[in-house]
Amino acid sequence: MIQININQSLIVQHWEYILPIFLVILGVFYFKKLKAFKSPREENVKSNKLDGEEYVGADYKDDEDIDEYTPALEESEHIPFKGASITLPGGAEAFYEIVNNRRSIRSFSNKTIPFEIIETCIKAAGTSPSGAHTEPWTFCVISDPSIKTQVREIIEAEEYLNYTQRMHRQWTADLKPLHTDHIKEYLTEAPYLILIFKQIYGFKPNGGRKQHYYNEISVSIATGILLCALQAAGLSSLVTTPLNCGPALRNLLNRPQNEKLLVLLPVGYASEDCKVPNLKRKPVEDILVTY
Amino acid sequence: MIQININQSLIVQHWEYILPIFLVILGVFYFKKLKAFKSPREENVKSNKLDGEEYVGADYKDDEDIDEYTPALEESEHIPFKGASITLPGGAEAFYEIVNNRRSIRSFSNKTIPFEIIETCIKAAGTSPSGAHTEPWTFCVISDPSIKTQVREIIEAEEYLNYTQRMHRQWTADLKPLHTDHIKEYLTEAPYLILIFKQIYGFKPNGGRKQHYYNEISVSIATGILLCALQAAGLSSLVTTPLNCGPALRNLLNRPQNEKLLVLLPVGYASEDCKVPNLKRKPVEDILVTY
Repeated sequence: MIQININQSLIVQHWEYILPIFLVILGVFYFKKLKAFKSPREENVKSNKLDGEEYVGADYKDDEDIDEYTPALEESEHIPFKGASITLPGGAEAFYEIVNNRRSIRSFSNKTIPFEIIETCIKAAGTSPSGAHTEPWTFCVISDPSIKTQVREIIEAEEYLNYTQRMHRQWTADLKPLHTDHIKEYLTEAPYLILIFKQIYGFKPNGGRKQHYYNEISVSIATGILLCALQAAGLSSLVTTPLNCGPALRNLLNRPQNEKLLVLLPVGYASEDCKVPNLKRKPVEDILVTY
Repeated sequence: MIQININQSLIVQHWEYILPIFLVILGVFYFKKLKAFKSPREENVKSNKLDGEEYVGADYKDDEDIDEYTPALEESEHIPFKGASITLPGGAEAFYEIVNNRRSIRSFSNKTIPFEIIETCIKAAGTSPSGAHTEPWTFCVISDPSIKTQVREIIEAEEYLNYTQRMHRQWTADLKPLHTDHIKEYLTEAPYLILIFKQIYGFKPNGGRKQHYYNEISVSIATGILLCALQAAGLSSLVTTPLNCGPALRNLLNRPQNEKLLVLLPVGYASEDCKVPNLKRKPVEDILVTY
């Protein structure tokens, strides 16, 4: 044996026992850490490597006790459908004129708006398609001034931290032309705030979890339909994603654990002195490719 | 020293050298693995623990050399905006009637549709709001039958694996009432396929990467507006998310690396014998909560 001048401590003397124990502890620690970082996709896919570009949208545990799974929707006979029968006079061109007139605004008038109009716009949003017809959306409409104030307090406190500490400097630079900062007057000025929650899962009649496939895409599509409805009704809005405010707002509104805030829209008429950035939209040849 | 009968092999004799080398290799291996699983949020947030519910939507590398970041949009004076001036006669109620008439269909007639209608619908989708006005969408419209056939081949091959091996049995059960399987006749039947790509980042004039904040939400909102436009024009469609087909379809269409397939929509008129599942939509009181 090569002679080396190492301290003949207890650790060195009993290394045959200490080394395996140390390795086991190390192994367990890293195994746990890796498991925590495991993507939902890995849990779903039992064979065939996926390509890392898409996701299953589900973190479903396999239940080995179940021989046959029952669908969340009731099975029923399909019915004939003759295609769209209620359309827009003027078709696509007329529709384009309407939505091209929409602008996101940050300054609202306090002019009152009948609640029925908001309700009808949300009914329109609720016609959105969704993964396996799960309809994974909840629209929370706030008109109570004291709750709007609380929403504003939550968001402004977080946004102050976002703008000053959390967001990358490139991000805050990119927002400069839009004149945004952590002060959000529209949260108390606008007659309505619509908070749109995505239900990341639902519940079966027996209380078990129901999968909501592609819930973020579904709820965002519903948001797009809502924007069209609001414009059709002559109302303006702003799509906001209050970074890091979701849990506090969910608590404020007593929403359940399966709901996560997707977007918040102040809704109303533009104020007298409303100004918007002088933005241009991309010409169609920059967004459309034909094959 | 306690005497134990262990093999006096080279490894045991030279453990003082072998152990540290082994530990270094182990450490490097796990460090790499952990880094690969690091969430985008971690790279962005320099202080303040986020709550795990939201994401920054960016995996931007900090650039220590840059003192001042310039915004991606040009800064210009804001202009007065008087609110929505082009709206729908009949307002929210009339809009609801139109979109409530929309159904997703899987059986298309081969009746031709002027390309200009599709183009106008995509112009409408392009009016969607987007994070920091990045407009992170590309709409690929396929009318060439041979390309539609290639799209169908790619998707049916993957969907066969999805249905038989990759998707959880609960998922395939949930899809049963919708009568879907891996055979997708609509991909060659429909006169148009619209593949909507999200641009996960863009490019600055100097060639550097431009951040596309919340690009998935933005492009999904644009998809919602597109659905409304198609319905306004009397056209039907189906929002599909071809699991695991994104890269092959991106290659087929020669789209760049920064574009990821979000959804694929066959578009056209319903066939004579088109049938749809007898689905009901949730009543408004199940999706709307007031405060």
